[in-house]
Amino acid sequence: MGRTRSAAKDIGAILADIEAEVRAENDWGNVASYIPELADIRPNQFAMSVCTAAGETVSTGDAMTRFSIQSVSKVFTLALALGRHGDLLWRRVGKEPSGNPFNSIIQLEVENGTPRNPFVNAGAIVTTDAILEGRKPRDTLAEILRFIRSAAEDDDIWINDRVARSEERTGDRNYAIAHFLRSCGNLRGECALVLGTYFHHCAIEMTCVQLARAGRFLCSAFGDQRLIPTERVRSINALMMTCGHYDGSGEFAYRVGFPGKSGVGGGILAVVPNVASIAVWSPGLNDFGNSKQGTRALERLSERTGWSVFA
Amino acid sequence: MGRTRSAAKDIGAILADIEAEVRAENDWGNVASYIPELADIRPNQFAMSVCTAAGETVSTGDAMTRFSIQSVSKVFTLALALGRHGDLLWRRVGKEPSGNPFNSIIQLEVENGTPRNPFVNAGAIVTTDAILEGRKPRDTLAEILRFIRSAAEDDDIWINDRVARSEERTGDRNYAIAHFLRSCGNLRGECALVLGTYFHHCAIEMTCVQLARAGRFLCSAFGDQRLIPTERVRSINALMMTCGHYDGSGEFAYRVGFPGKSGVGGGILAVVPNVASIAVWSPGLNDFGNSKQGTRALERLSERTGWSVFA
Amino acid sequence: MGRTRSAAKDIGAILADIEAEVRAENDWGNVASYIPELADIRPNQFAMSVCTAAGETVSTGDAMTRFSIQSVSKVFTLALALGRHGDLLWRRVGKEPSGNPFNSIIQLEVENGTPRNPFVNAGAIVTTDAILEGRKPRDTLAEILRFIRSAAEDDDIWINDRVARSEERTGDRNYAIAHFLRSCGNLRGECALVLGTYFHHCAIEMTCVQLARAGRFLCSAFGDQRLIPTERVRSINALMMTCGHYDGSGEFAYRVGFPGKSGVGGGILAVVPNVASIAVWSPGLNDFGNSKQGTRALERLSERTGWSVFA
Amino acid sequence: MGRTRSAAKDIGAILADIEAEVRAENDWGNVASYIPELADIRPNQFAMSVCTAAGETVSTGDAMTRFSIQSVSKVFTLALALGRHGDLLWRRVGKEPSGNPFNSIIQLEVENGTPRNPFVNAGAIVTTDAILEGRKPRDTLAEILRFIRSAAEDDDIWINDRVARSEERTGDRNYAIAHFLRSCGNLRGECALVLGTYFHHCAIEMTCVQLARAGRFLCSAFGDQRLIPTERVRSINALMMTCGHYDGSGEFAYRVGFPGKSGVGGGILAVVPNVASIAVWSPGLNDFGNSKQGTRALERLSERTGWSVFA
Repeated sequence: MGRTRSAAKDIGAILADIEAEVRAENDWGNVASYIPELADIRPNQFAMSVCTAAGETVSTGDAMTRFSIQSVSKVFTLALALGRHGDLLWRRVGKEPSGNPFNSIIQLEVENGTPRNPFVNAGAIVTTDAILEGRKPRDTLAEILRFIRSAAEDDDIWINDRVARSEERTGDRNYAIAHFLRSCGNLRGECALVLGTYFHHCAIEMTCVQLARAGRFLCSAFGDQRLIPTERVRSINALMMTCGHYDGSGEFAYRVGFPGKSGVGGGILAVVPNVASIAVWSPGLNDFGNSKQGTRALERLSERTGWSVFA
Repeated sequence: MGRTRSAAKDIGAILADIEAEVRAENDWGNVASYIPELADIRPNQFAMSVCTAAGETVSTGDAMTRFSIQSVSKVFTLALALGRHGDLLWRRVGKEPSGNPFNSIIQLEVENGTPRNPFVNAGAIVTTDAILEGRKPRDTLAEILRFIRSAAEDDDIWINDRVARSEERTGDRNYAIAHFLRSCGNLRGECALVLGTYFHHCAIEMTCVQLARAGRFLCSAFGDQRLIPTERVRSINALMMTCGHYDGSGEFAYRVGFPGKSGVGGGILAVVPNVASIAVWSPGLNDFGNSKQGTRALERLSERTGWSVFA
Repeated sequence: MGRTRSAAKDIGAILADIEAEVRAENDWGNVASYIPELADIRPNQFAMSVCTAAGETVSTGDAMTRFSIQSVSKVFTLALALGRHGDLLWRRVGKEPSGNPFNSIIQLEVENGTPRNPFVNAGAIVTTDAILEGRKPRDTLAEILRFIRSAAEDDDIWINDRVARSEERTGDRNYAIAHFLRSCGNLRGECALVLGTYFHHCAIEMTCVQLARAGRFLCSAFGDQRLIPTERVRSINALMMTCGHYDGSGEFAYRVGFPGKSGVGGGILAVVPNVASIAVWSPGLNDFGNSKQGTRALERLSERTGWSVFA
Repeated sequence: MGRTRSAAKDIGAILADIEAEVRAENDWGNVASYIPELADIRPNQFAMSVCTAAGETVSTGDAMTRFSIQSVSKVFTLALALGRHGDLLWRRVGKEPSGNPFNSIIQLEVENGTPRNPFVNAGAIVTTDAILEGRKPRDTLAEILRFIRSAAEDDDIWINDRVARSEERTGDRNYAIAHFLRSCGNLRGECALVLGTYFHHCAIEMTCVQLARAGRFLCSAFGDQRLIPTERVRSINALMMTCGHYDGSGEFAYRVGFPGKSGVGGGILAVVPNVASIAVWSPGLNDFGNSKQGTRALERLSERTGWSVFA
């Protein structure tokens, strides 16, 4: 069962099956509870969208419902930071899985302020700092939005300012990380400015359709590498594979078999290189802070399509 | 640049180019120094073999020189343990990258004796224990050899007993790990028997040609899944991608872009799913204990062929 | 050789000998370099003052030179916090040596925001928060100063505001700790207010004479427990013994043999229970951040007087 | 309330009170369960003996019942190792509290095979190795027994061989530590020989009366420093104070206020420098592996006598 062949299958029927299976589940996990804007969301919601190389977008479920993309935004800011700094970025951030939760500060201290990878919070804060580079947060945020809208070919994508302000109010752990980075000389901007930018790009809201479309720049199948060159696509996909699900990345690679990046809002952006861009959303989370039914859905999709990159 | 198309290129010419580039390098890294059998090997040796889906094996360099496969053997023992226990194996070993060196005991203590993955030493010792299951080491070793010879379709593959005995003499760190596992109830056999088996399967010697051929069972391109079913191929390749190079796994995924497993003898077995099985050998190591020029050669091969699974 | 007998010896002569030996040393260690106010101090300065049970204060060296007491202030704030909260304080801070540097955040994460003891930075920040309790920093600082002046029977003790502001500017590591504590629910005040108070009480300046006199409240020999009761004296001295010199506390207990608390300004307050209160100052530090010649001087004093509590 | 005065009180009456209070307790903790010889002991037993400077031994409870001294033996082996190697021993073992459980291997890896102090298992194994020095275990054990019998002035002290053999059978964690030390070059003897010696000296059995008498060499009050000189007494007492109760050492110093060393058999040897040697035994343990009622009894004794060294 090859990957190219699978792409030709009826994705729509597969998605319908997956949604039916998901709807039959009893355990949807728990929504993030640290800010009211996430805590108040009903957990048993589900949506999935697939953009195929043929140019179609096939969806199921609440695919037009906006959700907070949270850490999925780190994929876009990484693309921007690499565009701006190239491999110099890797002097400030590593490329290795962390073996620790997303918000751990332990490894940061052991490794003297160099975050393990751009997807743990510390690494994403450094990446945000690398994009800011002394500019105003508002200008940087405009650039991030521009990039995402351009990737999605959709201008109706916005930041939810209320979410960003809630994050700021409860953001002590991230403030701790930022100040720690700064004490190690690995944060140039003021903590408050960098984190303000960080909280705002995490507060971007998108629908599954929009997110799947925005993810096409990581899938060269679309033959359009306006946004970033192929070798950078490879780099980002490799990092999503090894580090995209925090300390559940190995399990995700094992079960799903293609790169993905999750967010605490319940969204996951996944990429089947050369074949498809996928967004899934279900706000209940598993123990690692990744969408419970979203992960299950991707696992089923992988089984049904043979899209794993590993055979 | 698709992966299928690349396979059609003239691999032989690419390998010749790569060898020329490698030979021009000055820094070959350092050979492992903990046992005389490895310490006495000249570092600036190089060989590479590629088995393509078309059934050919193309080689360059000292591809008929035998070397100690060391931790590459963990791929074969994992396949055997999964064959014997299926998913029950994962009750005893994890699937996550470790973020620590191959022989660290720290995470093992933090996680109460459950090794992070089957490729760190602790995980491979548990895997060996799972194959032993009360049988005699000699019978288990015979089974491992049978599996490898069958995969390689070559009976001229042997264990170097002198290497195994040297490992045993200097094996205090592995003894520490084994006893620690046993104190946590995660080792059923006697430490000396399990480690004896472990040291012996690490002391298997193969040529690059043999190793590349043996690796074909991880590449469904060969259309012959006598040894293990496709879903298990996927599992093993996923683990090689996220955990195959210890704390350099993220870098390897980033630079090479397909699964691989290294050994301290300087060998690497790499798999391009559906396309090719690759063995490379160069005994000088980098800081993570992986073959320095072997890794570079795979990186070049990936660039030249577009075999990265990530775009 | 009893401790009481030793107290009768000619302390003055002993101090003179010690100063002569210290002055003959070549290696005075390095001054703290993270703020200019400390970095600009000449390392090879030395002073020592001893208040004996007989009521005398005997000094040698620059005993009237003011220095920044820094972490020595943590002894006074601990006394105040225990006075205010009693044993309830121990719900928020531990009593165990840390085995880590003074500013480490690792153990704090492992133990979910409960600092190991009141003398590592994290513990002292919680202690400061416990004294603040919603009051204004200025009122709390006034209370701390009042306590110290009363203990020293000397009103000429002040905060160096310039030092406090420098600490604030370079205080990212402490901000990281404070925000981390807050994220764990173990800091009630605003980080900036708690740290402002913390930096200011660390910026108190005293002479050796003043510090030795202020330390008498920890030495019941003076028969005057106006400030704190005897059982609290025991508690604080016990903590100074096991935790007063960060990861050099065991060595200090081994070499000196009575409780002491060091500061990065080069001061140490030491207590010989029932016998004497001692202050020593020499701004050059050893590898653990404790005064190099100050520690040596206390070691010599212990040898000469037999004041070790351990025999 | 001075320490000398307290010694004059009626110790017998105090001990009787303490026993009455202890007998009224409901929670005696749990006995060690890893070997049958310890697991089968009834937890609610209690004995206490005090040797005063006046030369008397006052006891209460089951003071003639033999118990396994376990880690209390580390005090005697440390004295022997220091006698043999002096300060050179400190090249192989540290003097700092560990902040980790007694059998942790984490810090050992972080610090490359140098145990934190001679009382954690790793440190005691190195100390045992330092006494062995290529001699036969039986000769070394004879020397250890000779030292203890001489200190106690009692030849009726023996090793329980059955306990030692049980320890050996369940000793995987200690084997892990020993092999780890050996892999770092910090163990010269064969693991099995060193551990055999270690398990046997831990299996020494004594009564409270014998143990209190044996502890007099750490209390110069007895005016007889045949066994070790006063400066070494200071060193050992300092280490018992900062490291004698594993990760409960700070708490013990805080609550009891004089040096002590606990064993998993429920015994504690405590020293009031210049005043008394104390042994207490109650086999039920608290969370740190120290005798629950033994610790409480010492706390009460300290309160009643004012023997804390801290005021």
